[in-house]
Amino acid sequence: MFANRKRILIEFGDCDPADIVFFANYFRWFDACTTALFLAAGLPIRDLFKSYGAMGIPIVDARARFIAPSTYGDELEVESRVTELRKSSFVITHRFFLEGVLTLEGQETRVWAAAHPTESNRMKAVPLPREVIEKLSQNAKRAGRKASSRGSRSHH
Amino acid sequence: MFANRKRILIEFGDCDPADIVFFANYFRWFDACTTALFLAAGLPIRDLFKSYGAMGIPIVDARARFIAPSTYGDELEVESRVTELRKSSFVITHRFFLEGVLTLEGQETRVWAAAHPTESNRMKAVPLPREVIEKLSQNAKRAGRKASSRGSRSHH
Amino acid sequence: MFANRKRILIEFGDCDPADIVFFANYFRWFDACTTALFLAAGLPIRDLFKSYGAMGIPIVDARARFIAPSTYGDELEVESRVTELRKSSFVITHRFFLEGVLTLEGQETRVWAAAHPTESNRMKAVPLPREVIEKLSQNAKRAGRKASSRGSRSHH
Amino acid sequence: MFANRKRILIEFGDCDPADIVFFANYFRWFDACTTALFLAAGLPIRDLFKSYGAMGIPIVDARARFIAPSTYGDELEVESRVTELRKSSFVITHRFFLEGVLTLEGQETRVWAAAHPTESNRMKAVPLPREVIEKLSQNAKRAGRKASSRGSRSHH
Repeated sequence: MFANRKRILIEFGDCDPADIVFFANYFRWFDACTTALFLAAGLPIRDLFKSYGAMGIPIVDARARFIAPSTYGDELEVESRVTELRKSSFVITHRFFLEGVLTLEGQETRVWAAAHPTESNRMKAVPLPREVIEKLSQNAKRAGRKASSRGSRSHH
Repeated sequence: MFANRKRILIEFGDCDPADIVFFANYFRWFDACTTALFLAAGLPIRDLFKSYGAMGIPIVDARARFIAPSTYGDELEVESRVTELRKSSFVITHRFFLEGVLTLEGQETRVWAAAHPTESNRMKAVPLPREVIEKLSQNAKRAGRKASSRGSRSHH
Repeated sequence: MFANRKRILIEFGDCDPADIVFFANYFRWFDACTTALFLAAGLPIRDLFKSYGAMGIPIVDARARFIAPSTYGDELEVESRVTELRKSSFVITHRFFLEGVLTLEGQETRVWAAAHPTESNRMKAVPLPREVIEKLSQNAKRAGRKASSRGSRSHH
Repeated sequence: MFANRKRILIEFGDCDPADIVFFANYFRWFDACTTALFLAAGLPIRDLFKSYGAMGIPIVDARARFIAPSTYGDELEVESRVTELRKSSFVITHRFFLEGVLTLEGQETRVWAAAHPTESNRMKAVPLPREVIEKLSQNAKRAGRKASSRGSRSHH
């Protein structure tokens, strides 16, 4: 399925008094990496809302295993990959590397959400649009971007 | 004019490798203190949007003078005060105290913004509603909340 | 084992364009709730470093299941509980409630880390000090603080 | 004096319910841009601490004028420039552009701080090292990096 790579430069303000990244920031980067993956797949997130009827793609589950710390000045490479496509939700797995060494592995599950049919200001999970499924399940190699061709070099 | 006090407990994740608050977080607290001031004045921010026609109260200027650092475990008391009410904007001054000692003085200028008359998704400064002016100019002493009665003990 | 409760007021700046809390912020609050739990248990986190030889209590795993969204102005009550005490690590489970309704359940695993014996600027997991184990395993009811007596009202 | 340019991609999580960047994030980017400027000038910030005796370069004043909002998906170009070099402090001015249009102008004043001579865990402003002054006052054109040669195209 679709994969993408993104580089993250760790800033001083991302780190805590232990001199390492404050762990909550990795989840912020999960979101940035998912945005980048969608863009590389031909799905800019604004278009999800405008063209595909989504009110959002809220996260219902997120988890991370922190393997090695990083600090400011480090540049991480994150490999993000669609690892499950369900009827109205999907899973993206993120793997963070520092100089080729895995430092974090995590995943997020999101639902495709539309406006609730009867209650205003509420969302409801709906089936993923067919075009979205197609774009997220394309082989990374075929995606017409350098980012995704790099993603195709990934290991699993 | 109206004033309010709010306490902020500094968390580990608010601090950086120098073991002090990462300075951008103070501006995040400016916003929280302004929200608390508006609430104490009888203006919950959701109501600004629902009842008073505002699309937002965007910040057009913010500044801070950092006098002494703080670190996690410190509990700051912030005194926030409306220091200027202009036609379509206002200034709130924040003073941060740690155990009675001034550690930061800053201010923010915000505009009262409504939907732009001709361009969608844009805002336009409009005059502050009269009721908002009245609420923000009330003497802190008369405001019917404990928070504001504490505000009335402030020094200027 | 030890439990504690903490209230979190959600601020405007904690929310994203979907008008709900940006999910990474919940992990920031995990950390704040763990700090509060340690404090209520008689273990201010600065003391962990000064009195108990820890260089830190880094997170090795964090996960959350997001059940219902929250937005600014909401006040959440978080029940945090030590749910596992292992030789050199421990698990804290956080449950977020909005007006009594569970909105999030998550957990974090942390290790007790000391300075690495041979490599500078590195940490190494070491056994939890006995006094720390005792404090974290005390029945919440017996802890001498209002916060923990409230924790004892929790449901599991 | 020395100048540098850095690009910032605005993420969904950087924005608030008004669908624009939450203003405190700009100050976070000030710090990232200053780090980038120092690096481009030949002064990686870790070296400030290791090689130049600084305990930190804490901010004593920060201010910004917000001219136009930005939102997620926007890519900003920030021009950062040393605009004052004093005995033990310096000013960096940041100008944010979106597609060539100025959206924010701000500045930060930092002091060069060393360990306090008599009190542990405290800092004291000290004169800027001569080599640091030289590097920060070099003409951007002569700096041996693409980033700075781009900086030399800036307008003032």
